Amino acid sequence: MAAPVILAIDAMSGDHGYPVAVDAALSSLREHPQLQLILVGDEGRLRAALAERNHAGDPRLVLQHASEVVEMDEPPSKALRNKKDSSMRVAINLVKEGRARAAVSAGNTGALMATAKFVLKTLPGIDRPAIISAIPSVNGHVHMLDLGANAECSADQLVQFAVMGSALVTAAYGIQRPKVALLNIGEEEIKGNDTIKLAASLLQQSSLNYIGFVEGDGIFLRDVDVVVCDGFVGNVALKTGEGVAKLVHQFMKEEFTRNVFTKAAAVAAMPALKALGRRMDPRNYNGASFAGLTGIVIKSHGSADALAFAHAIGVAIKAVEQDIPARISSLLGRVVKPADDAAPGAEAA
Amino acid sequence: MAAPVILAIDAMSGDHGYPVAVDAALSSLREHPQLQLILVGDEGRLRAALAERNHAGDPRLVLQHASEVVEMDEPPSKALRNKKDSSMRVAINLVKEGRARAAVSAGNTGALMATAKFVLKTLPGIDRPAIISAIPSVNGHVHMLDLGANAECSADQLVQFAVMGSALVTAAYGIQRPKVALLNIGEEEIKGNDTIKLAASLLQQSSLNYIGFVEGDGIFLRDVDVVVCDGFVGNVALKTGEGVAKLVHQFMKEEFTRNVFTKAAAVAAMPALKALGRRMDPRNYNGASFAGLTGIVIKSHGSADALAFAHAIGVAIKAVEQDIPARISSLLGRVVKPADDAAPGAEAA
Repeated sequence: MAAPVILAIDAMSGDHGYPVAVDAALSSLREHPQLQLILVGDEGRLRAALAERNHAGDPRLVLQHASEVVEMDEPPSKALRNKKDSSMRVAINLVKEGRARAAVSAGNTGALMATAKFVLKTLPGIDRPAIISAIPSVNGHVHMLDLGANAECSADQLVQFAVMGSALVTAAYGIQRPKVALLNIGEEEIKGNDTIKLAASLLQQSSLNYIGFVEGDGIFLRDVDVVVCDGFVGNVALKTGEGVAKLVHQFMKEEFTRNVFTKAAAVAAMPALKALGRRMDPRNYNGASFAGLTGIVIKSHGSADALAFAHAIGVAIKAVEQDIPARISSLLGRVVKPADDAAPGAEAA
Repeated sequence: MAAPVILAIDAMSGDHGYPVAVDAALSSLREHPQLQLILVGDEGRLRAALAERNHAGDPRLVLQHASEVVEMDEPPSKALRNKKDSSMRVAINLVKEGRARAAVSAGNTGALMATAKFVLKTLPGIDRPAIISAIPSVNGHVHMLDLGANAECSADQLVQFAVMGSALVTAAYGIQRPKVALLNIGEEEIKGNDTIKLAASLLQQSSLNYIGFVEGDGIFLRDVDVVVCDGFVGNVALKTGEGVAKLVHQFMKEEFTRNVFTKAAAVAAMPALKALGRRMDPRNYNGASFAGLTGIVIKSHGSADALAFAHAIGVAIKAVEQDIPARISSLLGRVVKPADDAAPGAEAA
């Protein structure tokens, strides 16, 4: 049997609060025998919710009280300063203290990132953490970062993102030399800006498997494992993709409910449409990693239901079992040359 | 009957060359009785193509010889310097000389933009032209700019884009106060960068109907008429949307051809699927305007077929009949305050 994996779950944050987190926790415990969970939040409410579900006294599930909750629209700096006993903060503290191997939260991204960075710190050689997630593509899926932590990025940071993405894909999927691309635009005259051009030249010189630029459609249609971009562009691309998927869904519903013939056709087409729905279902992609920290923090979508939240817990289990932070550190050491002032010592060794 | 509209068609550029342009020209002449066309390109080939299609001697169609063609991957600066007799350049010259009211080209975007800017110049008060196009949305469609002409934009430029987009939507669709939004990302802490924040404050003070920020999914799902962003983000969003639409199409094809039952269902579902296909068909959105120039230039997709190219010709006809450049100038004068050095004169008046 696999070694135990202990996760801290911020059970109070997110649009739907603790009932969703509790349901997700229980289904995850059933699915993953190696899993042990620390549910962080209002102990009274959590105890009641577990009792309601006939799960009081499960030895693989312990409670950790936290008296506060970070609101979904609370400014990160305020949450960080004023809510030292929030379920979010306490869950991340458990990772820092080594009592949990990862934290999972559906709380507000900005506050979660600020808190995670403050408590856990970035890995040596990483300037800022980035948000990375799998998204569906013609090859199954592709990993993209940064999805919104850093609105502006330097070329060095983009290279660090490429390292993080490569290490994560290698660890989680066993792909030895993941194909890495930079997201860019296609017009020759203005192909990228100076930052992108510099990042491209740095990646070309690196030992990563850098395959060049992809455009927006290439994220989904090209044979690529990791797509790198700044957090502004990445966030817009991610949400644009979600928007188009919803638009197609809406149009499809309108067309299939147009008249009695199309309604009958919809019944016949249901198995294929349902299979399509499963492949595009964002719940099956829920769980973004905050890469570049010394510990593992997984962000679940604020509006996640129990199925989606459980998927985010699955992402956390994978990250723990593959020890992603250590893999990122190790790859970073091989890709990015040591600073010049370290060179004499290295020569003497 | 509507007043005659004379357009110059760059018949040689684009992936498929003159046969597509000739077919599109002939179908457009059939559809729009007020239309007259100047086909620009290799006179011998164009004459032969028209003869083949039994259209030699059509009085509404004249040929203008041009000896060169700008290649699809030719650097804009090179095309501008070396190809003074290209079909692209000659078509734009016809607009400059007043012999045509607009030019339509499927040539490379960078070269077309550079040539159009050089020959036609920008309108007073416009720093740089932007690429604007309609894209499908839950409300029918939305106009978005810039789609790739300017990788980096100042706040003032974003405001100019908002003016251009508003004027175009008012002119073309009779919407008196189009809802204008800035494309942004959602996380509180890093909501936008300084440029976006400044643009938002300028738009709030303007007389435009500015409704605030939209995120990537909002382009397609929110009640908005004009979405403004820089050309890098706009191009990524546009192509991301195309990519997701193609991905859904691919997944749908796979699901409906999985077995004999799903294949039978596909036959039953065909009318609804075809209607869906028409609504999402990018050919029905072909034809992007270069807004902010003194004349009208419409860019057709390089890979456009005759149906798509004809749609771009339709966009040009609409732009001519609504006199978009004059509308942009007029709205710009009302939205953007005159420069300080003009103020004393204004007070004296």
